[in-house]
Amino acid sequence: MEKISSDNIRGLILALASSIFIGSSFIIKKKGLIKAGASGTRAVIFGEIANFAAYAFAPAILVTPLGALSIIVSAVLAHYFLGERMHIFGMVGCVLCLVGSTTIVLHAPHETQVSSVKQVWNYATEPGFIVYASFVFVLVGILIYYYQPLYGRTHLIIYVGICSLTGSLTVMCVKAVGIAIKLSFSGHNQFIYFETWIFTLLLLGFCLMQLNYLNKALDTFNTNVVSPVYYVMFTTLTILASIIMFKDWNDQNGTQIAMEFCGFVTILCGTFLLHKTKDMVGSRVGPNLLDTSTNTSARNSSQLEL
Amino acid sequence: MEKISSDNIRGLILALASSIFIGSSFIIKKKGLIKAGASGTRAVIFGEIANFAAYAFAPAILVTPLGALSIIVSAVLAHYFLGERMHIFGMVGCVLCLVGSTTIVLHAPHETQVSSVKQVWNYATEPGFIVYASFVFVLVGILIYYYQPLYGRTHLIIYVGICSLTGSLTVMCVKAVGIAIKLSFSGHNQFIYFETWIFTLLLLGFCLMQLNYLNKALDTFNTNVVSPVYYVMFTTLTILASIIMFKDWNDQNGTQIAMEFCGFVTILCGTFLLHKTKDMVGSRVGPNLLDTSTNTSARNSSQLEL
Repeated sequence: MEKISSDNIRGLILALASSIFIGSSFIIKKKGLIKAGASGTRAVIFGEIANFAAYAFAPAILVTPLGALSIIVSAVLAHYFLGERMHIFGMVGCVLCLVGSTTIVLHAPHETQVSSVKQVWNYATEPGFIVYASFVFVLVGILIYYYQPLYGRTHLIIYVGICSLTGSLTVMCVKAVGIAIKLSFSGHNQFIYFETWIFTLLLLGFCLMQLNYLNKALDTFNTNVVSPVYYVMFTTLTILASIIMFKDWNDQNGTQIAMEFCGFVTILCGTFLLHKTKDMVGSRVGPNLLDTSTNTSARNSSQLEL
Repeated sequence: MEKISSDNIRGLILALASSIFIGSSFIIKKKGLIKAGASGTRAVIFGEIANFAAYAFAPAILVTPLGALSIIVSAVLAHYFLGERMHIFGMVGCVLCLVGSTTIVLHAPHETQVSSVKQVWNYATEPGFIVYASFVFVLVGILIYYYQPLYGRTHLIIYVGICSLTGSLTVMCVKAVGIAIKLSFSGHNQFIYFETWIFTLLLLGFCLMQLNYLNKALDTFNTNVVSPVYYVMFTTLTILASIIMFKDWNDQNGTQIAMEFCGFVTILCGTFLLHKTKDMVGSRVGPNLLDTSTNTSARNSSQLEL
């Protein structure tokens, strides 16, 4: 079995730091400290920067599912600092998120070595990814112009679908811009190429769109229903987009792919338990997990808040 | 990453067959067919033979945790044939057991190649295993003569501890006798060596002891409490004994060992959910999961019923 590459380790550390910042931001807010609002927002911003940077180093298949860890950080801190008690199934959920994350970390593919943004542009304009992107555009178009007026306010899947589909393209742009910044810092300025600016513009466009529909979804439906559905769809589509664009699976064997899938399913089960357990205990735990849910969605909309 | 060896595949198929037989035996019984008793018992016997044979081909680290699959077989069959509905957490538990089993199967060590029972005897008499076995004997002795009279009827851990500690030695004897039978069938008669007979006698002795204390535990405490505790302790100690005796981990790297651990934890979480969900839904599901729990303990006491 192969070793974890140093870039994956950097990405992992950044993703963990991101989870710690985002997870603790909710506790800071709830703790009701003076200037809590300011500290909480600052923690979220640090978290999102770390998350953004993580995408520059490691494959999306590694970074995206780790978003679930911010729920754990939030739940564990709430236990110690707010005295909120967790249901035993919530603890099982935490353990599962950790085990699933470990599985993914140990089997994640190596990040495709990229020496310029032009190379990312070449990946993005290969037939496979063009087909995926066109599929996303057509589907989002149909959802917005045909289904939204009919079912938008009754069927959660419309808004969340638009967000998740757009989100998978957002993350690809985040990767491109992240790699551009990383390379520019190491002395190879990438902002002299027009491709870098196209990725940056697309990133802004997708972000605004994702933010718009995420807000619509949160206005219309309960956060606790939106968050898990959004987490699952967003993570799945992002991983799919990454596999198509960066051919993450090309140098992997069946076992590694199977294990990434197993790890992902384990995290999903854990997240599901964490979200469901709030219905099973007294109101004290309720608000906490409700907040950590908001957390996931805040995190998935990631770049939106930068 | 390495391929799964053909012996591990044989062991895996036998362990799965065992789970199917044992899991369905409970459905046959509950279905209340004419001669149900006979068919149910027959299914259990086939299951135990398959389980016994599985140990002859694959490492205990692979075979033992797969025992959890019989719970799934039983739960799924109960859903279709008895119309018993499963709680959503029970389904999550099933998924986790499957994911955890896949993880273990894909990372299980190769079975140590054994060409005669004398070789197993050499493994068993190496210092490491002698220390483990002595530790088990001393601990079982203390539990029986000192703690049992004081806490036997109030603390579950006494009886279950005796069963699990003895059980880990039983499985090692099962492996030795299983390998002896396998080799004898392939033309190398092993029953000419006195070591084979010692293993057989020890197997009988440990079985009787395990059966005795398992019955005491089941007479004193609720099956639903005994089963999961027993499953966890028995599986953990058996894997530990196997690692010490057959040095399962010698040719494995950190990732593989970590993944075996992750898979085991995932199965434990799944089993926990399956056992706990019976408290959360109507009485219709109750008795079913209660029976499948008895199942686990029946399975763990495995050889006892042969």
